[in-house]
Amino acid sequence: MKNQKKLKLGIPKGSLEEKTIELLNKAGYNIKLTERLYYPEIDDPEIQCILIRAQEIPHYVEIGKLDAGITGGDLILENKAKVVEVTDLEYTKRRLGKIKLALAVSKNSGIKSVKDLRGKTISTELVELTKDYLRKNKVKAKVEFSWGATEIKPSQFADAIVDIIDTGETLKAHNLKIIDTLMEISIKFIANKDSWQNKWKKEKIENLSLLLKGALAAQKRVGVMMHVPSKKLKEALKILPAIKKPTITKIIGENLYDLLTVAKEEEIRELIPKLKKAGCTGIVEFPLNKVVE
Amino acid sequence: MKNQKKLKLGIPKGSLEEKTIELLNKAGYNIKLTERLYYPEIDDPEIQCILIRAQEIPHYVEIGKLDAGITGGDLILENKAKVVEVTDLEYTKRRLGKIKLALAVSKNSGIKSVKDLRGKTISTELVELTKDYLRKNKVKAKVEFSWGATEIKPSQFADAIVDIIDTGETLKAHNLKIIDTLMEISIKFIANKDSWQNKWKKEKIENLSLLLKGALAAQKRVGVMMHVPSKKLKEALKILPAIKKPTITKIIGENLYDLLTVAKEEEIRELIPKLKKAGCTGIVEFPLNKVVE
Amino acid sequence: MKNQKKLKLGIPKGSLEEKTIELLNKAGYNIKLTERLYYPEIDDPEIQCILIRAQEIPHYVEIGKLDAGITGGDLILENKAKVVEVTDLEYTKRRLGKIKLALAVSKNSGIKSVKDLRGKTISTELVELTKDYLRKNKVKAKVEFSWGATEIKPSQFADAIVDIIDTGETLKAHNLKIIDTLMEISIKFIANKDSWQNKWKKEKIENLSLLLKGALAAQKRVGVMMHVPSKKLKEALKILPAIKKPTITKIIGENLYDLLTVAKEEEIRELIPKLKKAGCTGIVEFPLNKVVE
Amino acid sequence: MKNQKKLKLGIPKGSLEEKTIELLNKAGYNIKLTERLYYPEIDDPEIQCILIRAQEIPHYVEIGKLDAGITGGDLILENKAKVVEVTDLEYTKRRLGKIKLALAVSKNSGIKSVKDLRGKTISTELVELTKDYLRKNKVKAKVEFSWGATEIKPSQFADAIVDIIDTGETLKAHNLKIIDTLMEISIKFIANKDSWQNKWKKEKIENLSLLLKGALAAQKRVGVMMHVPSKKLKEALKILPAIKKPTITKIIGENLYDLLTVAKEEEIRELIPKLKKAGCTGIVEFPLNKVVE
Amino acid sequence: MKNQKKLKLGIPKGSLEEKTIELLNKAGYNIKLTERLYYPEIDDPEIQCILIRAQEIPHYVEIGKLDAGITGGDLILENKAKVVEVTDLEYTKRRLGKIKLALAVSKNSGIKSVKDLRGKTISTELVELTKDYLRKNKVKAKVEFSWGATEIKPSQFADAIVDIIDTGETLKAHNLKIIDTLMEISIKFIANKDSWQNKWKKEKIENLSLLLKGALAAQKRVGVMMHVPSKKLKEALKILPAIKKPTITKIIGENLYDLLTVAKEEEIRELIPKLKKAGCTGIVEFPLNKVVE
Amino acid sequence: MKNQKKLKLGIPKGSLEEKTIELLNKAGYNIKLTERLYYPEIDDPEIQCILIRAQEIPHYVEIGKLDAGITGGDLILENKAKVVEVTDLEYTKRRLGKIKLALAVSKNSGIKSVKDLRGKTISTELVELTKDYLRKNKVKAKVEFSWGATEIKPSQFADAIVDIIDTGETLKAHNLKIIDTLMEISIKFIANKDSWQNKWKKEKIENLSLLLKGALAAQKRVGVMMHVPSKKLKEALKILPAIKKPTITKIIGENLYDLLTVAKEEEIRELIPKLKKAGCTGIVEFPLNKVVE
Repeated sequence: MKNQKKLKLGIPKGSLEEKTIELLNKAGYNIKLTERLYYPEIDDPEIQCILIRAQEIPHYVEIGKLDAGITGGDLILENKAKVVEVTDLEYTKRRLGKIKLALAVSKNSGIKSVKDLRGKTISTELVELTKDYLRKNKVKAKVEFSWGATEIKPSQFADAIVDIIDTGETLKAHNLKIIDTLMEISIKFIANKDSWQNKWKKEKIENLSLLLKGALAAQKRVGVMMHVPSKKLKEALKILPAIKKPTITKIIGENLYDLLTVAKEEEIRELIPKLKKAGCTGIVEFPLNKVVE
Repeated sequence: MKNQKKLKLGIPKGSLEEKTIELLNKAGYNIKLTERLYYPEIDDPEIQCILIRAQEIPHYVEIGKLDAGITGGDLILENKAKVVEVTDLEYTKRRLGKIKLALAVSKNSGIKSVKDLRGKTISTELVELTKDYLRKNKVKAKVEFSWGATEIKPSQFADAIVDIIDTGETLKAHNLKIIDTLMEISIKFIANKDSWQNKWKKEKIENLSLLLKGALAAQKRVGVMMHVPSKKLKEALKILPAIKKPTITKIIGENLYDLLTVAKEEEIRELIPKLKKAGCTGIVEFPLNKVVE
Repeated sequence: MKNQKKLKLGIPKGSLEEKTIELLNKAGYNIKLTERLYYPEIDDPEIQCILIRAQEIPHYVEIGKLDAGITGGDLILENKAKVVEVTDLEYTKRRLGKIKLALAVSKNSGIKSVKDLRGKTISTELVELTKDYLRKNKVKAKVEFSWGATEIKPSQFADAIVDIIDTGETLKAHNLKIIDTLMEISIKFIANKDSWQNKWKKEKIENLSLLLKGALAAQKRVGVMMHVPSKKLKEALKILPAIKKPTITKIIGENLYDLLTVAKEEEIRELIPKLKKAGCTGIVEFPLNKVVE
Repeated sequence: MKNQKKLKLGIPKGSLEEKTIELLNKAGYNIKLTERLYYPEIDDPEIQCILIRAQEIPHYVEIGKLDAGITGGDLILENKAKVVEVTDLEYTKRRLGKIKLALAVSKNSGIKSVKDLRGKTISTELVELTKDYLRKNKVKAKVEFSWGATEIKPSQFADAIVDIIDTGETLKAHNLKIIDTLMEISIKFIANKDSWQNKWKKEKIENLSLLLKGALAAQKRVGVMMHVPSKKLKEALKILPAIKKPTITKIIGENLYDLLTVAKEEEIRELIPKLKKAGCTGIVEFPLNKVVE
Repeated sequence: MKNQKKLKLGIPKGSLEEKTIELLNKAGYNIKLTERLYYPEIDDPEIQCILIRAQEIPHYVEIGKLDAGITGGDLILENKAKVVEVTDLEYTKRRLGKIKLALAVSKNSGIKSVKDLRGKTISTELVELTKDYLRKNKVKAKVEFSWGATEIKPSQFADAIVDIIDTGETLKAHNLKIIDTLMEISIKFIANKDSWQNKWKKEKIENLSLLLKGALAAQKRVGVMMHVPSKKLKEALKILPAIKKPTITKIIGENLYDLLTVAKEEEIRELIPKLKKAGCTGIVEFPLNKVVE
Repeated sequence: MKNQKKLKLGIPKGSLEEKTIELLNKAGYNIKLTERLYYPEIDDPEIQCILIRAQEIPHYVEIGKLDAGITGGDLILENKAKVVEVTDLEYTKRRLGKIKLALAVSKNSGIKSVKDLRGKTISTELVELTKDYLRKNKVKAKVEFSWGATEIKPSQFADAIVDIIDTGETLKAHNLKIIDTLMEISIKFIANKDSWQNKWKKEKIENLSLLLKGALAAQKRVGVMMHVPSKKLKEALKILPAIKKPTITKIIGENLYDLLTVAKEEEIRELIPKLKKAGCTGIVEFPLNKVVE
C-alpha cells in the first residue's frame, strides 16, 4: 500500500534542469541535490524525484516507470508517446515562453525552402519529426541523427538542420537562418495513463500542476497597491489591468480609497506613470510567489 | 557613559557564521565583513559585533567580556556557563529546526547500547556532557577530546562518538548509526547576568531578540490573499490556518470578500488547492520579511 | 520616423555599472549583457542602451550622441557639459546615498589646509574642478591628471589629491586624511537639451526617471501590516511613520483594525518593538519593488 | 591545392575534451578556444580543428568529412566504421591508461552472469556492441538505448547496463557490480582511408601521432641524473631501468661518473633510495615534456 | 646611504599587470600581492615595486619618481618622455610578441585611407601620436580623447579610431577593419637618466634586464637531448637549430653520442620527426626556466 | 601478514593540508581526495593515508593508531608525545622555512616583557608549553585555552597570547607585537616507536623521508648548464656554488667545456650575471623535481 502512495516524478536532467528545479522550489517544494545525484531530495514524502534525460521521460512515463514527468512537447511527439498531457508550462532554459522547432541552413548556402533539400543531408536530434515533415512536403532527403551541437553541422557536415530555437542567438552566432518553422513547442507536464486513473495519484498530479502554474504565473506578475481620491476612483479603475478584480477599500477617516491588484510585469512600466498622472498616490509595487486565478 | 551605550554581541565564527549573519541581516541589521575580519561592521552604532568561536561564547558572556551572544545550547551546558537564556533560535547551518546530541558507533561494530561501552574509548568535542551521560548510565569508559571531524574516529581511533547530528547525512556517509540520543539542542541567544540588570542593555537585547525571532518566523511563512464570494466566506475561513486572524474586507461594488492572512510554507501546498476548490479566486501568495505574533 | 522613436541611453561602464544595471532591472527593465558587450539588450524596443565610460557620458549627451545618460554629478561639472539634469539618483557603487569630492593628504604630511599646498603637486582625475577650487582659494599649485588609483599618489608621487570619497575605507587603508570637502555629489540622470524638447523623448525620459526613483525608494523601504485593537488605534497611528498615509480597515467580525503602511528600513528596527508594546499583533513586514509617492 | 594542404582534425567534445586539448598542447600545438566555440584556433596553419561529439567522429572520418580524429575505440566498433587506426593513445578523462566495457547490475539484483539476463532489459549507449555480445552468448534480451547517466538505470529502469568503466567509482556510488567484461578499450587516433593515401596528409598524421605519443610518454616519465664513484659504476648501472640507454660521462678532474637517464614515475620512488644506497650522490630528478624512444 | 641602495621599479597596473608579474616571477623574483595593493612585496630588499598605471610610468620615470619601469613603447612616445630605453620585452597581455598601433574604421563606413578622414572625428587614447600622424599625412581631423573601450566608438561616436591591436579579435568582434598601421610597438624596460648614471643602480637595472630577457627567451624554448649513432652524428648536427652550440658527448662503452641543445618551441614539432628519421633515439624534450645566450 | 605491510600515515587536516599533499605529490605519491574525505587515495598500496587534525597526530602516533605522521614540532612538545622524530621538513602553509612560537601583546598595551604578565590572562592553543614557559620565567598568570583566532584576543579578551608566527602579517593586521620568542619550530615527520623497530616499516618510513626531503630541496633549487671557453674554466668554477660538484664535460670539436650543476634559487639571480661576465655562453636554467644530495 505504501508504494501506491508515492508519486514517481521525472525531472529533465540537462539544459532544462536548473529552471525546472527552480520552478518546483517556487511552487513550494524544497528540492536539494544530494550525493545520490540523480535522486534529489524533495520535502514531500509522497513524491520521489528522478533526474533523467528529457528524451527518456516520454517513454518512461508511457510504460509506467514514471507516474509523471516534465519534458519538451517535441520529445513527446518524436517518441509518439501515449501519455496524458496535464498542462503546458511555458518556460525555456533562459526565459518564460515557448520555443519553436525550425528548419535552418547556412546563410550563404543558397537553400531557400524545404524543396531545395532534395537529395541533401539534414542533421537533427528529432529524426522522426523531421522525416514526418519531409514526407508532408514530399521531399526525399537523408536525415542523420545528431548527437548535439547541431548548429555547427551546416555546411561542413550537413546541408540543413532541424532544431529547437529559443532566443535565436545560437543561430546568429553560427551564421544560420531559419527557412521554415515546423511547429511551436512548450514544456509539458505529462502523466502515465494508468496513474491518471488512480484517484490519489490524479489529485496529487493536479495539485502539483496547480502550484507549478501558480508559481510560473507569479514570475510575470507583481502586486500593486495605491491610494486614490474618491473622485478619481473611476478613472483609476479604468487604467488598472483586467486580470484580477482589484480589492477596493475605503480608508477610514480619509477621502481616499485603497486599491490593491495584480499586474503583469510588462504592463507595470506603463501603468505606474499613468496611475500617477490620474492622481494616485502612495503607489507601491511588491513581489509575488504564486498567482492562482 | 558612551561605553555603557554599546552592546557587545558575540557572533559564532565557523559553521554557524553564515546563517547567523544572514539572520541578522533579515532582522534588519546590515552586517558587513571588513578588513578587520573578526569585527564586522553593523549599521547600529549601539552594537559592537565580534566574530568568535561558538565554544568560547558561553564563557565570555558569563564573565562579561560579551554582553550577549548567539551559540549552541550544548556549548552552554558543556561550559556549565551561568548566563541568561533570552530565547531559542531554531536554525542550523543547513536548515531551520533543532539538532540533537547523539551517541553513535560504526554500523558493523556490534555495539548496541551505552552499556556495551564499558572500558572502551569515546571521542567527542563535548567531554563534560559525555562524562555526565556516562555517569548517569553508570558506565565507565575513556572519553577523549576530539579536535573535529569526530565522525571519522570509529572505529580506527575510537569505539564510539558523542556528536551533534543535523541532517544525519554525515553519519550515513561514514557508515555510523545512532544508538542513543542524549538531548535535543537549539541555538540560543544568551545574555550576561549583569547586562540583563542594566535597563538599557536589557531593552536592547529584548528588541534584538524580537527582531531575530520575527525574521526566523518569516522564513517559514508567506502572506496569502484571495477573493471569496460572500456565501463561501465561512467555508474559506475554516480552511485558513489559525496562526493569524485573517483580515476580512468587503470589496466595494462586488459580492466578494478579500481575505488576507499568513500561512506556514509547509501548509501552503495543501492550502491553495483547497481554497480554490472552496471557490476562492485571485489567490495570491507573497513573501514576508518578518512575522511578529 | 522610426529612429525618432528610439531613446539612446548611456549607462556608465565600470565602477557604477553593476549597480546601475541592477537599478534598471528593479525599475522593470530587463537588461542582459550579450556578446555585443557594450550594447546590452533591454526588453523595451524604444530604448537603445550603450555601456560607456561615465567620463564620456556628459559630453556625448551634450552633443546629442546620446539622448540621456546616467553619470556622476562631478563629471558633468568637470566637463562643464550643458545638459538637462532630470533627477538625482542617490546610490554609489557600494550603497545608497551621496558621495563627496574631497581634498586629502597623507596623515603624516604636516599639510593642514589648502593654503599649505602653495607650490605643491595635486593629483586628481578632476583637473578642472580642482583648478577652480584652487583659484577660489587663491592657491597656486601644480595639478596633475591621475589615470586612476589616485589614493596611492601621496606622498611618493603627489603632495595631495582631490578625489571622490564613498565610504572612506580606501582613504584609511592608504593612511590619508581629508582636509577639505569641495562638494557633495550624487549620480544624476541627464538628458540632451534637444531630446528634452521632443515630446515623445521627454515623456519617455520622465517615465524612466519615475520608475528609477521608485525602484531606488523601494530599496530603503518595506511594507508593514498589523492588527490593532480598536481602543489602541490612535496610539498605534502616532507611532507609524508619516511617509505614507496608512490604509486603515475595520476587520469584519472582530474588534480589530488592520493597518497597512510603508516604512523606512532604518526605522523598522525601532518601529516593530514599539508597535508590539502598543498592543499591535500579527505584525508582518514584507518586501517592496517600487514606491512612488 | 590550398585545401589539400589543410588537415581536418576532429577533437572529441565533452568528457574527453579537456584532456585531449591538454595533450595536444603538450605535443606542442597551442590550441585556444575562441568565440567560434566548435572551431578552436590551433597555431599550425596546416590543421583545422573541429570540436565534435566523440560518437560522431568515426562516421565523419569514415566518409571523409574529417581527415583524422581522436575518439574512443568502442565508438569505432559500435559504428563499424572503416577507418585507419593510426595509434592507441592511452588516457582517459581522469588518468593515463585504458578503460573497459563491462556488463553491470545492481548489487542486490541476484543476477550473476549474462545468462541470467534472458528476457530482461539492458540499457546502454552502445546498442550494437551489446547486441553482438548477447548474440555471442546466445542470450535474448531487450536492449534499450540510453541517452546518458546509464549508471542510474538499474534496477528502476533496466535490469542491467553495458557501459564504459574508468576508475569504477561511479559503479560503486550507484551500488552496481561488474559481472562481465566485454573488452578493454583505449582512445584511438584514426584517419580516413583516402587521406591516408595522400602523401602529405599521411606524413602530417604520422608526425602528429609521434608528437602525441611523445607527450603522453613524458607524462609518465622523468629525467634523472646522478654522480657515481668509478668503482660503484657497474652496480649503479644494474639498478637503472632499461627503457633508455643512460648517458655515461666521466667528470673531468674527479674519480666520478655522471649518469643521465629517463625513468618511469612509478619506478622513481624505489629507484632513488636504491641509488643512494649504492653510493650515488647528487641525485637530481627533472620533469620532461616529450619522450620519443 | 640606505636609500641610495633601493631601486624604485614601476610595474604596469591593469592589462599588462598579470603577465608582467608572471615574467618577474620567472626571472627569479618572488612577487606577492599584499594588503598594500599597490606596493607588492618582492623578495629582493634592494628593490621597491610600485603598481602604477602604464600611462603614468614614462612621466614618473622621466622626473625620477621611479628609477625604472616597464611600460608600452607607445606611451613613451605619447608622453615624449626623456628616458633610457634599456631593452625591449616582447610580450603582450595574451602572448609573446609585438603589438601594433593602427588606424581602424567600421567595415561598412566607406572610409578607405587616412585621406578620407578630413573633417571627421578620431577617437583614441593616444592623442599626441594621432595628431603627429595626421600632420605627417596632412589631414585635418578632430582628435577626441577616449577613456577606454575605443573599439566601440565607430561609427556611433567617432568615424575612426587609433588603437593598440594585439590579436585582432576585438576589431573583428566590433566589425572594424584596419586601414593603416602607424607603427609596431613593444613593451619596454626603461630607466631614469640620473639613475642610469649611478653605478649601483645601473648594474642593478642591467642584471634585472638580463634575467627578464632570459626568462622571456625560455618561454619560447625547450631543451632537447638525444642519442645518435656515431655514423649519423654529422647528419643529426645539420638538422639541429643553430641558436646554441650543442653539447656533444661520447657515451662510454657505446657507439653512441649524446647531443644536448636548446630549440625554439615552434621548431620542435618539425625537429623531432626529422631527428627520429635521421636515426636518433631516446629523444627527450624538457622545459627551461631561463635562456641567456 | 597483510596488515603488517600497510603503513598508516597521518596527514594534517587544516592549515597545513594543502602544502603537505602538494609535497607528497612532488615526492612522487599521487594523492587524490575522494568521497571518503578523510581517507584520500594514494597510489602506493603499502600506505594508508588518513587526514586528521595536526593536534591529534602526536597522540595517535604515540599510541600506535598511526605508524607515522606529519605534524608541527610544537604539538609534539605540547602533547609530550613519545615518538621518533624522523626528520624536519621545513615548510609552512605559505612558504619554505621554519616558524616560531612567540609571546605577543597589543602594541599599545604597555606590556614589555613576560615579567609584566603577572596576574594577567594569556590566551593560547598551546596551554602546556605556555605554562612551562611561565614557570621557567617565574611568572604566575592565568592561561586560557583558545579555540582559534587567538590573534583577536588582545586586549578585549586576554592581555597576551602565545601563538605560532609565520610571516608576521597576521600580527601586524591585528596591531600586535612580539615581546618574546619561546622557540623556533619546524614541521616534523614522526614515527611510532614500535613501528620503528619493525624492519619493513622502518625502511618504508626512511624511504618516504628521503623522497619528501628530496622534493622539498628541489623547491629551492634549479639546474643550470652553460658553455665555458677552456681558458675561463677555472674562473667559472670558482663562481659556481658548492652544493653539488658540477659535471664538467669537454665538448667534442670545440674549445669549450660544458658545466652542469644545481644552484639555490636565491643565488641564481646573482649567479647568471656573474657567469655571463666571466665569459660563459648558452646559460640555461631548468626546473627540478627532486634533489637528493
